[in-house]
Amino acid sequence: MESFKNLKETCYAANMELPKLDLVVYTFGNVSVVDRKQGVFAIKPSGVPYETLRPADIVIVDFDSQVVEGSLRPSSDTKTHAFLYRHWEHIGGICHTHSTYSVAWAQSQQDIPVFGTTHADHMTQDIPCAPPMADHLIAGDYEHNTGQQILDCFHTKGLSYQEMEMVLIGNHGPFTWGKDAEKAVYNSRVLEEIAKMAYLTRQINPNAPRLKDALIQKHYERKHGSGAYYGQGC
Amino acid sequence: MESFKNLKETCYAANMELPKLDLVVYTFGNVSVVDRKQGVFAIKPSGVPYETLRPADIVIVDFDSQVVEGSLRPSSDTKTHAFLYRHWEHIGGICHTHSTYSVAWAQSQQDIPVFGTTHADHMTQDIPCAPPMADHLIAGDYEHNTGQQILDCFHTKGLSYQEMEMVLIGNHGPFTWGKDAEKAVYNSRVLEEIAKMAYLTRQINPNAPRLKDALIQKHYERKHGSGAYYGQGC
Amino acid sequence: MESFKNLKETCYAANMELPKLDLVVYTFGNVSVVDRKQGVFAIKPSGVPYETLRPADIVIVDFDSQVVEGSLRPSSDTKTHAFLYRHWEHIGGICHTHSTYSVAWAQSQQDIPVFGTTHADHMTQDIPCAPPMADHLIAGDYEHNTGQQILDCFHTKGLSYQEMEMVLIGNHGPFTWGKDAEKAVYNSRVLEEIAKMAYLTRQINPNAPRLKDALIQKHYERKHGSGAYYGQGC
Amino acid sequence: MESFKNLKETCYAANMELPKLDLVVYTFGNVSVVDRKQGVFAIKPSGVPYETLRPADIVIVDFDSQVVEGSLRPSSDTKTHAFLYRHWEHIGGICHTHSTYSVAWAQSQQDIPVFGTTHADHMTQDIPCAPPMADHLIAGDYEHNTGQQILDCFHTKGLSYQEMEMVLIGNHGPFTWGKDAEKAVYNSRVLEEIAKMAYLTRQINPNAPRLKDALIQKHYERKHGSGAYYGQGC
Repeated sequence: MESFKNLKETCYAANMELPKLDLVVYTFGNVSVVDRKQGVFAIKPSGVPYETLRPADIVIVDFDSQVVEGSLRPSSDTKTHAFLYRHWEHIGGICHTHSTYSVAWAQSQQDIPVFGTTHADHMTQDIPCAPPMADHLIAGDYEHNTGQQILDCFHTKGLSYQEMEMVLIGNHGPFTWGKDAEKAVYNSRVLEEIAKMAYLTRQINPNAPRLKDALIQKHYERKHGSGAYYGQGC
Repeated sequence: MESFKNLKETCYAANMELPKLDLVVYTFGNVSVVDRKQGVFAIKPSGVPYETLRPADIVIVDFDSQVVEGSLRPSSDTKTHAFLYRHWEHIGGICHTHSTYSVAWAQSQQDIPVFGTTHADHMTQDIPCAPPMADHLIAGDYEHNTGQQILDCFHTKGLSYQEMEMVLIGNHGPFTWGKDAEKAVYNSRVLEEIAKMAYLTRQINPNAPRLKDALIQKHYERKHGSGAYYGQGC
Repeated sequence: MESFKNLKETCYAANMELPKLDLVVYTFGNVSVVDRKQGVFAIKPSGVPYETLRPADIVIVDFDSQVVEGSLRPSSDTKTHAFLYRHWEHIGGICHTHSTYSVAWAQSQQDIPVFGTTHADHMTQDIPCAPPMADHLIAGDYEHNTGQQILDCFHTKGLSYQEMEMVLIGNHGPFTWGKDAEKAVYNSRVLEEIAKMAYLTRQINPNAPRLKDALIQKHYERKHGSGAYYGQGC
Repeated sequence: MESFKNLKETCYAANMELPKLDLVVYTFGNVSVVDRKQGVFAIKPSGVPYETLRPADIVIVDFDSQVVEGSLRPSSDTKTHAFLYRHWEHIGGICHTHSTYSVAWAQSQQDIPVFGTTHADHMTQDIPCAPPMADHLIAGDYEHNTGQQILDCFHTKGLSYQEMEMVLIGNHGPFTWGKDAEKAVYNSRVLEEIAKMAYLTRQINPNAPRLKDALIQKHYERKHGSGAYYGQGC
């Protein structure tokens, strides 16, 4: 039982960032963190408010979404997390919220255009909005199919999950991921800021152009390219 | 006098949530909680700021809005609360605020369309906006008639108060309710968030479609249906 | 020197409410409070940040805006305050801010329409926006003329300063007043909330109608009429 | 090594204002402060979060952007700061953020019109938005060229850096400056407020006129002119 203690604490800490960053109200969100050696991931229990959440409440499940340890039911979105961990071997954490501006874009069923360098500092493409699923998929294994929906969206648009670490599920909200849970949460916060900036930009100038290619490449490269000089290189 | 001590404290605690959740400024709101066995409900006194409100200030009134205990005048909206408790036997608490985005939709005299799963996680219908009352009803027993206005709106639209636990009063603001005062307050906070998301959605995409029926049903069922798997089932 | 101690402390306390209520950044605002028996009023010194303001910094000036006590220069808006105290004998405090939504309406040179009961709970008319002054008045005794501009606006629109306790100066921002400094600050906070609600209402429904007369009268009367039943009657 | 202790602490304190003023999330911003006698400036290290930043982390660089003292890599925007210090001899501090409303205007590629006295209290001109750079300049010495872009923008528009202490870089975000780091940060906060007010003004009234010249001059002169009577004259 002690073997998952660190995993639970990491998962707990990442979940507790969400209310601090104003990304959730009540129980509207969840973060998971994977341990690939043991073939499990830790995830928030379903419907438990952040104010009362404790590290011991975190649920350990395997990649088939079966509970390995924990007395509570895992997040209702667990199968979507499991699907992504199975298919994307380089991600270490996943975050899902209903943050306000990200949801507004998802409900608008529109990609978020790359309007500026705040966006380009993190990725070179528009943030994709996956279209709503067909009715038989919704009625079927819904959360599993949500994972498939994300994969299909990335395939159709030719996106790499290692370069684009976020997606909007049409009419639902954002999923983000990263090398660990902390990065997944960071990406949710960044997405919400970019979503708000893009919203305001469109309101001020409905014809605001996408950022020019040279600037997209420059800002992405200085932070993520082989000659990157942003950050401390660690 | 001691018999209502718990009822007052529950009512006090629920009222004090409103400023914490940024749903009120000054005295713009009130929560009540009912004790059906004793045929009374507890409600905030009128015009008392939250900063100075004490549990002993809470007023106990009967279903005819007559004061049973308390030295202060009850909320000016007391008759609306009494009306709803009389007609809807399964509700335990009622909350009224002037929260910003909910009021904006009420002033726009528009229902809030179900644009996404945040909405569908809580109800399957658009959030109704009751039309303004006829002049003779306004000039008459106004707060009583506001209760009637809510009932008429639910009748006209074929809504169930146990499934749709909120309403906008046209040009005024929201009333929400639930099995207890805590749930009523929760519904006010959720309504404000949904109202903001719907506002932003319309600004980004004036032609944003309502959520498709399959998704409405799926999200509502997974949280509230017989096979619900959201939350801890308690 | 001790004679103005209470007046200064009242003025200080009212000024310190402004940053708490998110109505000002840095030095963008000022509150004054009058002592009509002594023929003076207390006002915030010019350009002093709220973080470092002390009660002893408050300046006492007479109705000709001459400093009676205090080592600092009074607010640059002092002559506007003096003008209003001279002409409106029943006001006890005045508040001026550059709060965001109120300024946006002032910069739009539009009255704020009465869209709902939050507005009607406080006044029955649209909140007036005074037009910009003629150039020779701006170049002249500007702050004195700002007072005249307010008076002219109320005269032209047939408004009573005892019923409408707020105004927008076109392209500048709001002035509010009341029986004391606390009420003047309260009115600034209420104005900002009404300004935000009206902004959102127009965005959702550009054709949103003004509140019907019966509701305007009802809400105003229940709070301020001879048979008022809102509040504790004290 | 002790010679730069004060410079580092001043720079640290100014940087720490940014999260307090809600102008940055994570590492999205940087402030520098110059010591012209020693020919160096202090600047935030690149990619270090504000929560963990310490005074000792601040990097000292010369006007050629070479590190003079410090074990961390300086901000990726260091060359832009160096360029401005070299060309504008009267500035003592520079601040760069990605604050939300300022970025939205930058992404809209529009100057912020002077709509009111909040703006005119600080400057008489529209806040300029520098156009995006040519591709070969982006691919070249980008941060150096960003400085040149600012200079060219001021030259083209006939602006003085001592009167207009801020600029928007098209598609990127704001740079502000002043006599010291504290003033530079102050200008970033003021810019964000003006940007939000101007945004709201345009939404309420798409045809809102610029402030008339007489008011622009009056407000600027009473704060900055030879006969200024705003503030305490120190």
